[in-house]
Amino acid sequence: MDYLELKTLQTARLKETLRTVFIKNDFYKNKLNEAGIKHISDIDNIKNIDDIKNLPFTAKIDLVNNYPFGIFSRPLKDLIRIHASSGTTGKPIIAGYTKRDIRVWSHLMARVLCAAGLGKNDIGQNAYGYGLFTGGLGFHYGAEALGMTIIPMSTGFTERQFTMMEDIGATALFCTPSYALFLGEEINKFIKDTSKIKLKKGIFGAEPWSNEFRQNIESSLNIDAYDIYGLSELLGPGVAFECVYKNGLHINEDNFLPEIINPKTGEVLKEGEQGELVLTSLNRQAMPLIRFRTKDITSLYKDKCRCGRSFVRMHKIKGRTDDMIILKGVNIFPSQIESIIFGYDYLEPAYLIELYTDNLLDKMNVIIEPKQEVFNMGGSKMDELTKEISHKIYELVGIRSKVTAVPPKTLERSQGKSKRIRDLRKKI
Amino acid sequence: MDYLELKTLQTARLKETLRTVFIKNDFYKNKLNEAGIKHISDIDNIKNIDDIKNLPFTAKIDLVNNYPFGIFSRPLKDLIRIHASSGTTGKPIIAGYTKRDIRVWSHLMARVLCAAGLGKNDIGQNAYGYGLFTGGLGFHYGAEALGMTIIPMSTGFTERQFTMMEDIGATALFCTPSYALFLGEEINKFIKDTSKIKLKKGIFGAEPWSNEFRQNIESSLNIDAYDIYGLSELLGPGVAFECVYKNGLHINEDNFLPEIINPKTGEVLKEGEQGELVLTSLNRQAMPLIRFRTKDITSLYKDKCRCGRSFVRMHKIKGRTDDMIILKGVNIFPSQIESIIFGYDYLEPAYLIELYTDNLLDKMNVIIEPKQEVFNMGGSKMDELTKEISHKIYELVGIRSKVTAVPPKTLERSQGKSKRIRDLRKKI
Repeated sequence: MDYLELKTLQTARLKETLRTVFIKNDFYKNKLNEAGIKHISDIDNIKNIDDIKNLPFTAKIDLVNNYPFGIFSRPLKDLIRIHASSGTTGKPIIAGYTKRDIRVWSHLMARVLCAAGLGKNDIGQNAYGYGLFTGGLGFHYGAEALGMTIIPMSTGFTERQFTMMEDIGATALFCTPSYALFLGEEINKFIKDTSKIKLKKGIFGAEPWSNEFRQNIESSLNIDAYDIYGLSELLGPGVAFECVYKNGLHINEDNFLPEIINPKTGEVLKEGEQGELVLTSLNRQAMPLIRFRTKDITSLYKDKCRCGRSFVRMHKIKGRTDDMIILKGVNIFPSQIESIIFGYDYLEPAYLIELYTDNLLDKMNVIIEPKQEVFNMGGSKMDELTKEISHKIYELVGIRSKVTAVPPKTLERSQGKSKRIRDLRKKI
Repeated sequence: MDYLELKTLQTARLKETLRTVFIKNDFYKNKLNEAGIKHISDIDNIKNIDDIKNLPFTAKIDLVNNYPFGIFSRPLKDLIRIHASSGTTGKPIIAGYTKRDIRVWSHLMARVLCAAGLGKNDIGQNAYGYGLFTGGLGFHYGAEALGMTIIPMSTGFTERQFTMMEDIGATALFCTPSYALFLGEEINKFIKDTSKIKLKKGIFGAEPWSNEFRQNIESSLNIDAYDIYGLSELLGPGVAFECVYKNGLHINEDNFLPEIINPKTGEVLKEGEQGELVLTSLNRQAMPLIRFRTKDITSLYKDKCRCGRSFVRMHKIKGRTDDMIILKGVNIFPSQIESIIFGYDYLEPAYLIELYTDNLLDKMNVIIEPKQEVFNMGGSKMDELTKEISHKIYELVGIRSKVTAVPPKTLERSQGKSKRIRDLRKKI
């Protein structure tokens, strides 16, 4: 699709979406009123997709405040499915889908699988959680749309995951990067001759992960690992995806309009500048969202990919505004620490960032796991090691941190999304 | 469909199925050879669906021995999905599906939902396990085919089940009867005003349950409860189902040919006689099974149902040949004990049958839970109660058993299939 064609399509779809929410959703009607769109005919004044910057943002809290159905633009009877994610309050965040929404989503997920080089003859072992979480069913329907064979494993039952991998001969694995890493750590325990495993590709998402993380998964499972991005508020997985060149994520721009903003001021940033990703639904019936603030930190860039796809790309998510550690006024993302830890062959691929208060000062302790043979070398070796890593962290983020070595397999492994930060700081 | 039409359809589909397995499956080719079908043209000699009695049985052990793909009649590349159930050995039992198989299955499940009086405007809370187990995705696709709204809850997270029930307003619940019973026991803990719950119907299966069990679920959740029957080897749920008259299960005879046999001799029994249910696939591509021995005990009857459906019906499953307790030469099913326990208002809906050896003799101890106010009455009341129940059991099954009262909520509750027997007998 060429640039002008895309912009025309996006503008038309944006206007259609605005008309829908204006007519069918009181929350959005009020928001648009406040932004100066008093009558539906005012929507016709939007000439250019860049005019979106004049529209109001939607935040997660708006979904919480309008729980359960206040954000829907269709009545319950028009829905065929409901998903939910755990919310910031005790109540979940509800996502609704019409029949058409599910079809569109499945199609977008088929694109994702196709871009990773998968096709009809592949067998996908789907270890994303099935159920209310959008990961499992998102991949399931995408694989089905593409005509793959899908094994609906869901999460957990690691031994059975390996049994099926070995006996059915899955060629692709779908799960969170944390679980893929865990499978990579465990594979030799369960499979005698890993050369017989047919796995060649994996698509991993639902949490930010670094390129060093990728290398670890790729070498332990002997596969190509691809990133995928999405969020349940905007359909689920399938917003953006890596192609076989693994060089940034192609955003499905015909369905989602991306912007990068300064998370503090809301100002729209330029191509290449890093900030918070904001997404607008361009093709959704049940629950279109206007300028949804994802809290994810990345940047956009338009240079052509070798694969030929022309949609804008985004860099791997660096972290979430939620996860960003502010220590002594410095912003640090766990992914920065991760890129250091996962770069060392003699460390296990695991870490925990502990924030604590010592003598009124906030400090950071990075807990690492040296491999068994390294750990066995004892005290002075550990001192040397932790000093080196502390120095690397200082070089990268500008903060001096404590680094603590614990025996291998001491830190908790996750079968879903990992928890990387333990915040023990005293709140004043 | 009238009787002759049905028999003609069944015969044609049986012959088509036999041709398929004869050509495409070595295991079946050998089996059919042994049964005298040496050439594919011999299949033409089958004139009548009753000739099926001359064909060999397939047992679960045949699936185990031909693990993983030896029972498939299609190559892996023709499949779009794989399910699995836990096998009797460590390996699972694999079930494969072509695109058409999934379509047929979804259609059959839509029939099931429709027969329970559900339709487009209903919201189904699907608390069957999603993933390899056929329950979750079976109901999911059936609801989708019917145009219902489905909430893919999967099992567990009881508090969230109630949150969604209350906030989304599900009108139908799908799960195992054990989990429905558990939800019924817990509902008052989580929901203040149960009159606001919109639930009106539930479809429960994947384990045998008695009519007394049904009454308990119906009164605690204030719904109509329907039974459904199926097994992963033969698609999954959707082999047979109750209509709104709850008077036996209609078998989807156009897709499954049912027979009742004497489990010891293999002899086919007459209408009304109780024995082991045997099923033959009549409309399956990936994995047709010939005369599969289900191990489930029931009987068939043909008298018309008030709903007008003409397919043969089967009684609620009484138990499995596996679960049948043989004590002093007498056959006892847990469902018989259940029908007594669940008939008492002053007992909690829970029990455990403990088999043990005392002085070289095998004995039975039925553990029950009197309700709190009854339990508080103490020793002599308990003696009276347990004596009465022991007498009832004796009257029904002809065996004198010990009955032991334990405090309420002492026995384990299941969120999936319940375990009703604890066998502590000494094996000689």
